[in-house]
Amino acid sequence: MPIVRRAGFLNHLAQMTILDKIGPISQPLPLERPLQPVRVAVLAFEGVSLFHLSVPGIVFGVTPAPTGLPPHEVRYCAPTPGKVRCDQGVEIEVPGGLEAMTSADLVIVPAWNHPEAAAPAVLTEALKQAHARGAQVVGLCLGAFVLGDAGLLDERRATTHWACRDLFVQRFPKVNFLPDVLYVDDGNVVTSAGTVAAIDCCLNLIRQRHGADVANRVARLLVTPPHRQGGQAQYIEQPVPVLPSESRLPGVLEWARENLSQPLSLDVLAEVAHMSRRTFTRRFREA
Amino acid sequence: MPIVRRAGFLNHLAQMTILDKIGPISQPLPLERPLQPVRVAVLAFEGVSLFHLSVPGIVFGVTPAPTGLPPHEVRYCAPTPGKVRCDQGVEIEVPGGLEAMTSADLVIVPAWNHPEAAAPAVLTEALKQAHARGAQVVGLCLGAFVLGDAGLLDERRATTHWACRDLFVQRFPKVNFLPDVLYVDDGNVVTSAGTVAAIDCCLNLIRQRHGADVANRVARLLVTPPHRQGGQAQYIEQPVPVLPSESRLPGVLEWARENLSQPLSLDVLAEVAHMSRRTFTRRFREA
Repeated sequence: MPIVRRAGFLNHLAQMTILDKIGPISQPLPLERPLQPVRVAVLAFEGVSLFHLSVPGIVFGVTPAPTGLPPHEVRYCAPTPGKVRCDQGVEIEVPGGLEAMTSADLVIVPAWNHPEAAAPAVLTEALKQAHARGAQVVGLCLGAFVLGDAGLLDERRATTHWACRDLFVQRFPKVNFLPDVLYVDDGNVVTSAGTVAAIDCCLNLIRQRHGADVANRVARLLVTPPHRQGGQAQYIEQPVPVLPSESRLPGVLEWARENLSQPLSLDVLAEVAHMSRRTFTRRFREA
Repeated sequence: MPIVRRAGFLNHLAQMTILDKIGPISQPLPLERPLQPVRVAVLAFEGVSLFHLSVPGIVFGVTPAPTGLPPHEVRYCAPTPGKVRCDQGVEIEVPGGLEAMTSADLVIVPAWNHPEAAAPAVLTEALKQAHARGAQVVGLCLGAFVLGDAGLLDERRATTHWACRDLFVQRFPKVNFLPDVLYVDDGNVVTSAGTVAAIDCCLNLIRQRHGADVANRVARLLVTPPHRQGGQAQYIEQPVPVLPSESRLPGVLEWARENLSQPLSLDVLAEVAHMSRRTFTRRFREA
């Protein structure tokens, strides 16, 4: 079995961990044909989340040995290859265009910056074709909007970041929207909930292809749960109950929580509330 | 209060979430002096983890409104500025050199690729000076090794990725090593456990500076727990009990779990184990 060596600390650790702690276990299975790598195309675009660009690489890029599994080839592509500026300002060099999607087994769309407007046709067409060809198409977080624009989610189950759920339901009424899950797979179309759920989603893709044992090992190397209980619902920000509009108490209490290191006298709190000390005291008792 | 607008979907969501769901709450506190941004310098180097480059940006880059908090300025720096190739092959453009550390409030070192050897003096010197000046110095995952090489961890509490704990203890015998925590802060020197614990670590830095309320809001936007129970210990890969060396059953069972989609006849399993069908059956009953 040729050992696929990749750069990066995680593969270094993967080799160390298995060989040092578990020792060589099994001979690889004699294979009828050589292992074809799983080709993963990750979409980049202006303002793309550096985090979502990194997640497929860190989950698919590490192959815990000995597995005899095909390696993953993670490639980045963009509608216009070359320099692409990410959300945190750093520029990355994207070598390939959307043609990378035509040969990918897995196409990954990071959180989309403009969920209010339809994604460009060049992008939705490439996704439709990849899906029609049998590729698994994944929308991480707001990337689900691009899959929705491509019509890939109609009559299917899908999710997205909780903060955009109203917009999602409004823009894609034919989708069976699941607000609470961390990810959902329906007909080779996979969508994940907000931000960090991208890790759960990619671990699940590993689990689908290679089984729970491999996914669990990757999760342990990443120091993250192989499966999170409870879905996205537990992370949704609950609206703070709003008191009558003339009351500023919620704002004051919030401010106080943020400034616990300062001396919080009644006078200071009343001033933040734009009230007299007496009014503030009465309102505070009422609340 | 000037609204700090950053690129990226998360700040878009942060604005949407608070304004749509909670409504404008409090007037900002009248401040004696304008808010100084928190300057964060993130180190890049050849083969650096794209994931660890992205984590400070995604945690510090989002400012849930309304907070009246100083913004974070996340800057990337490298011993040699310019093109830097990350672990997954993608190249990033790093504009600044290590001088960025001389004015940073927070210096972050991602997982280091060469934990076996001492880090270059140019790097350890820059870290020592930043720490002496009062900056908080953070080693994510194997980044702890660079802080150790700079002597910043001597007589302090620190942690690193579980898979490198033996090497860490051996290389830095003066460190009070904590194997089980997800992160630890000792004297402005912060280290985090393996890989994804970098998110927990950065959320804790937000909590230290701005309180639990802000950290909880950022965590919700990231769809990640604000605090994980149980530390790193729960993720450590336990050695698989090794049966007598002549038995190949563990490898076979592993292979079987990975190939559940195939027909797993006794003949196939015996072949994988390099045993006769009869021997395999006997060993299987013994195991």
